[in-house]
Amino acid sequence: MTDTRRTPSLIALDWGTSAQRAWLLDRAGGILDVRRPDQGLLATTAGIDVRDARARERAYEAAFWSACGDWVTAHPDLPVLACGMVGSAQGWADAGYRTVPADLRFGADALVRVRHRSGVAHLVPGLRVPSAHGAPGDVIRGEEAQVIGALDALGEPTAALTLVLPGTHGKWVRVEEGKVLSFSTAMTGELFGLLTEHGILARTAAEPRRDDAAFARGLRAGRSRGLATELFGARPLALDGLLDPASVPDYVSGVLIADEVAHHLPATDRDRVLLCGAEDLCRRYEQALAAHGVTPTVLTEDVAARGLWQIARWTGLHHDAQEQQWQ
Amino acid sequence: MTDTRRTPSLIALDWGTSAQRAWLLDRAGGILDVRRPDQGLLATTAGIDVRDARARERAYEAAFWSACGDWVTAHPDLPVLACGMVGSAQGWADAGYRTVPADLRFGADALVRVRHRSGVAHLVPGLRVPSAHGAPGDVIRGEEAQVIGALDALGEPTAALTLVLPGTHGKWVRVEEGKVLSFSTAMTGELFGLLTEHGILARTAAEPRRDDAAFARGLRAGRSRGLATELFGARPLALDGLLDPASVPDYVSGVLIADEVAHHLPATDRDRVLLCGAEDLCRRYEQALAAHGVTPTVLTEDVAARGLWQIARWTGLHHDAQEQQWQ
Repeated sequence: MTDTRRTPSLIALDWGTSAQRAWLLDRAGGILDVRRPDQGLLATTAGIDVRDARARERAYEAAFWSACGDWVTAHPDLPVLACGMVGSAQGWADAGYRTVPADLRFGADALVRVRHRSGVAHLVPGLRVPSAHGAPGDVIRGEEAQVIGALDALGEPTAALTLVLPGTHGKWVRVEEGKVLSFSTAMTGELFGLLTEHGILARTAAEPRRDDAAFARGLRAGRSRGLATELFGARPLALDGLLDPASVPDYVSGVLIADEVAHHLPATDRDRVLLCGAEDLCRRYEQALAAHGVTPTVLTEDVAARGLWQIARWTGLHHDAQEQQWQ
Repeated sequence: MTDTRRTPSLIALDWGTSAQRAWLLDRAGGILDVRRPDQGLLATTAGIDVRDARARERAYEAAFWSACGDWVTAHPDLPVLACGMVGSAQGWADAGYRTVPADLRFGADALVRVRHRSGVAHLVPGLRVPSAHGAPGDVIRGEEAQVIGALDALGEPTAALTLVLPGTHGKWVRVEEGKVLSFSTAMTGELFGLLTEHGILARTAAEPRRDDAAFARGLRAGRSRGLATELFGARPLALDGLLDPASVPDYVSGVLIADEVAHHLPATDRDRVLLCGAEDLCRRYEQALAAHGVTPTVLTEDVAARGLWQIARWTGLHHDAQEQQWQ
């Protein structure tokens, strides 16, 4: 009896703005191999005119082949499924958005197909909250796969819950009964990067080092004077000798995350908050949530791969997967 | 009878982080000449080790001489007075801080003297709110001269008032009876620069153009979701075709300024708000204040020169100025 679990079944990619992850998945969604090429949207499109669809196609096809070409060559019949900014207007092709409220589960007609040198790849559409009456809506690309994977990991709960997906553009997603109801983006990670790499606080910091106590102090900083002022607070603290200049980044991280959590934590269902992301970020958000008496369920595993594998099941890409026989 | 008003009386400098302005002032504080060399602290200290006091002295002396050497040569007895980051720990010499509450008026012993190749220059100390119980205080360097100049321009009012000094690090200063009571900094201008030069919104913007309507929309954007989310709102608005990508910077400016004003506008004395700065910035803050029913007194003139001239009077630097004879 062969171990069907070790048989490759899907090439899955989470292809975002700055990062690209590629997984070779088996018939049960297990990870056989993983790669993290440094070929996000920005690197892939560097030096080309992003308005030129042909130039984009060539650039993405080359980046895809560089990441996964040997997998495709070894397993030519394997389906390829990708989520993230690869499906944006600056991506391989524009995979569009589904509008919330939206079922997490969707059919094959929602996928957009692009050609690579020996077959096709399928792109997952994003999700959007439409702008209305001049008020901005919001968009997600890639996080929808994380949401699907996280809910699958928890046994597909149906009660209303909040998923927190921290990152460059952190997402707060409300889900109930298999539907995404709404979501918001906080550009907390981007602000952190800009402030600590390019700003006056970067000059203060000099040689950053990890300082959990400084992070906790940032968490406790006030919010009454507004984010633009509380962030600046790191500077007088350092000038007054009350904050090690090397700890400025962790203080800034605390100020930003506390502000994000205070604004986004819903008033209801606080016992059903799911936190999902890299271990260090989850630890930080756990601390910030604890200040509100909230203990989230934490998933530090890579749930995007699990979500993509589920999407492949739903959309029939696993034509030969044993799971299909059960449906 | 000679026109004493045309006799040079003071070389005054407002020497900040990114800019340097130098004025040749007459005996009544009138501006005979003005220069804006591109030699702020960052440019002056580029390539030297700022911890090396000797290297800093040489760099600042050279930058000073390049800006004002011909004035000093033509008028060798003229006093030189400078405020701003030139008096910081990364400056020509550390002129220290006076702690609030602090009289605006101070004596010659508060000035720090540095040598240049044919005399001395006097550096104005900054102002500080000390950090206390782990909560950040705040610091000002250079704005104290603007406050002095602005109050002088208004005939030295004694009632409590709020001065708004927008900029890279905008200041909100509370003054009463010739004393600075307190102040706060909002790094609104810095955040604007970081977001629109380096961030994802810079990619959205492409070719920015001025758009007053987009600014007004940014002013009206909500604040309930927090600054990190409202700023991101520019992106879905642009993706939804509801905001011209070229107008993203003005929208972001509106979001930032509205948030700053909402957090800093005092609950009392709203009929005594003084707004002082560059014309375009003042126009923006006027609009933001109008949303709170506040009509500020606006001073777009260069009040730092007037403030430095006043400091020179108080500290006796105008040893030959006719104003001294009146005291």
